[in-house]
Amino acid sequence: MEVYRKEFYIGLSLAVSSSVFIGASFILKKKGLLRLASKGSTRAGTDRSTSGYAYLKEWLWWAGLISMGAGEAANFAAYAFAPATLVTPLGALSVLVSAVLSSYFLNERLNVHGKIGCLLCIIGSTVMVIHAPQEEEVSSLNVMAEKLTDTGFIVYAVSVVGSSLVLIFAVAPRYGQKNVLVYILICSVIGSLSVSCVKGLGIGIKELFAGVAVLKEPLFWLLIICLVICITIQISYLNKALDIFNTSIITPIYYVFFTTSVMACSAILFKEWLKMTTDGALGTISGFFTIILGIFLLHAFKDITFTWDSLPLYLKKSPQGIHGNISLTQLSQAMTTKPMKS
Amino acid sequence: MEVYRKEFYIGLSLAVSSSVFIGASFILKKKGLLRLASKGSTRAGTDRSTSGYAYLKEWLWWAGLISMGAGEAANFAAYAFAPATLVTPLGALSVLVSAVLSSYFLNERLNVHGKIGCLLCIIGSTVMVIHAPQEEEVSSLNVMAEKLTDTGFIVYAVSVVGSSLVLIFAVAPRYGQKNVLVYILICSVIGSLSVSCVKGLGIGIKELFAGVAVLKEPLFWLLIICLVICITIQISYLNKALDIFNTSIITPIYYVFFTTSVMACSAILFKEWLKMTTDGALGTISGFFTIILGIFLLHAFKDITFTWDSLPLYLKKSPQGIHGNISLTQLSQAMTTKPMKS
Repeated sequence: MEVYRKEFYIGLSLAVSSSVFIGASFILKKKGLLRLASKGSTRAGTDRSTSGYAYLKEWLWWAGLISMGAGEAANFAAYAFAPATLVTPLGALSVLVSAVLSSYFLNERLNVHGKIGCLLCIIGSTVMVIHAPQEEEVSSLNVMAEKLTDTGFIVYAVSVVGSSLVLIFAVAPRYGQKNVLVYILICSVIGSLSVSCVKGLGIGIKELFAGVAVLKEPLFWLLIICLVICITIQISYLNKALDIFNTSIITPIYYVFFTTSVMACSAILFKEWLKMTTDGALGTISGFFTIILGIFLLHAFKDITFTWDSLPLYLKKSPQGIHGNISLTQLSQAMTTKPMKS
Repeated sequence: MEVYRKEFYIGLSLAVSSSVFIGASFILKKKGLLRLASKGSTRAGTDRSTSGYAYLKEWLWWAGLISMGAGEAANFAAYAFAPATLVTPLGALSVLVSAVLSSYFLNERLNVHGKIGCLLCIIGSTVMVIHAPQEEEVSSLNVMAEKLTDTGFIVYAVSVVGSSLVLIFAVAPRYGQKNVLVYILICSVIGSLSVSCVKGLGIGIKELFAGVAVLKEPLFWLLIICLVICITIQISYLNKALDIFNTSIITPIYYVFFTTSVMACSAILFKEWLKMTTDGALGTISGFFTIILGIFLLHAFKDITFTWDSLPLYLKKSPQGIHGNISLTQLSQAMTTKPMKS
């Protein structure tokens, strides 16, 4: 029991630090590119084809790439220690980290909505962490093999692969360019299989360090092959989506779909929701919705400049008292207090 | 233990139905006033002094008043069954009910912020309910008397009365008209004493129904006197605030200050936080902050017309790809994917 708790906190720390690394990597990369752009503007005659690779000479860009790699590694490791129902939603924190860092280091002002969105991401993550199941579901690759051959999971995997094929070959060619959901759906459902593979591999690697002959087990290699295939499909379709649609809409939708399908897959594979109390389940869902609303606020109003001054928080009433649309409470107040005075 | 749980759910239902009644009362009153206004416009020559009381003949206005009374009674009763740390924050639901009802019955469109604010109020309330201490702290007026004479509470009560007197006689005459916080602070700290009185009276009335000779106890009458004094001060200063400042700013600030001071008072009086786990305390605070952000969104952006169409959720990128300010992820995506293709 104590070991599980310790592992939970290791996984939690890995998931949070993964978000910090990934969030910071965006800033480092952009800072590098901006520095490159300022260099480029002083020597305006540079050949276009060489400047396309100039970022490779910028150390900040490399720092960003390394930070990204470290973040992904920490994320991978986090799955080996903590439940996927916790690790995946916490990915929201990287959005938050990059938003906060960019307002400090890139002087990109975060508007009121952005600040509220950040707060909501933190609050939602806190609530999810509180309610996450703290017991590890799987301790060895053998147990994982049992879970993976469970009827429930096989039905899930087959329907994921089937619906992905339909989406890729029948729906995507026709509607992929018009509807943002098509490509994102493909990435999300395939992504849930990637996470299952990562989870299995993480446990395998943990066993490897403990001296178990994991490399002889075919499941270990099967998981690696599946992971490579899944991630290739995911990256390819995510790039297709990003080529056509705006990042401001892809990020929140992808977060919601990806996290939901990972949670569904994890629920089928590990049946962790069965062990939860009603309160725990309600708390997890509430936390998840809080994060979704936070990410929505961070993104949907990104291009609108809102400051505290532009809010209708004019402290004093206008001389006429109420003008234009009468607010509900104003009216009822006016009715309940004014007659007493006269 | 089972009795406590049952009482908790009774208190919870009372608190929620109180919010429904109070929220509905605003709509009924406004509907009545609107009907009155449409009647008034057909007989334009009506004397102004009589029309000032015309609402007394409108049954909808009376229905609103009765609904308000029922709501306040249910709220009063809720304090007798459930902890104040739960009942007071749930008052946020009345804001939500009136917002939702007014969009249905008064055709007042709720903008995107309003909808997100409503969702956040529901989510925050759920999280607070999950984490509320389910054990009743006080079972009889005698126990309440012990708690009220506890050094901690006496220090709190004296400092509340002292600071209120300073605010009323020294600060309010000078800054009350300029700073919205002065009047609201007076209402809020005095309000925490009202809630303590209500809590004590509720328990007393419960005992009365059980056949205890509560009416002979001086504490019962003392609580009634204190309650009348506190509520008089509260209403008077709330009206002063509403006369000068806009309801849109008073409602959220009053909610935050009032609920915070009730929770502080309840913590000192019943020491309920000592019995909470770290998770429970974190959850309660998270839920409370979620509600605050929800109420802020509901109010601060009230007068801005936002629809889904006005959001920058343009699905397709512009032909030039990126224009104006380059978004962070767009740029990093552009760097990581484009070079691979060329």
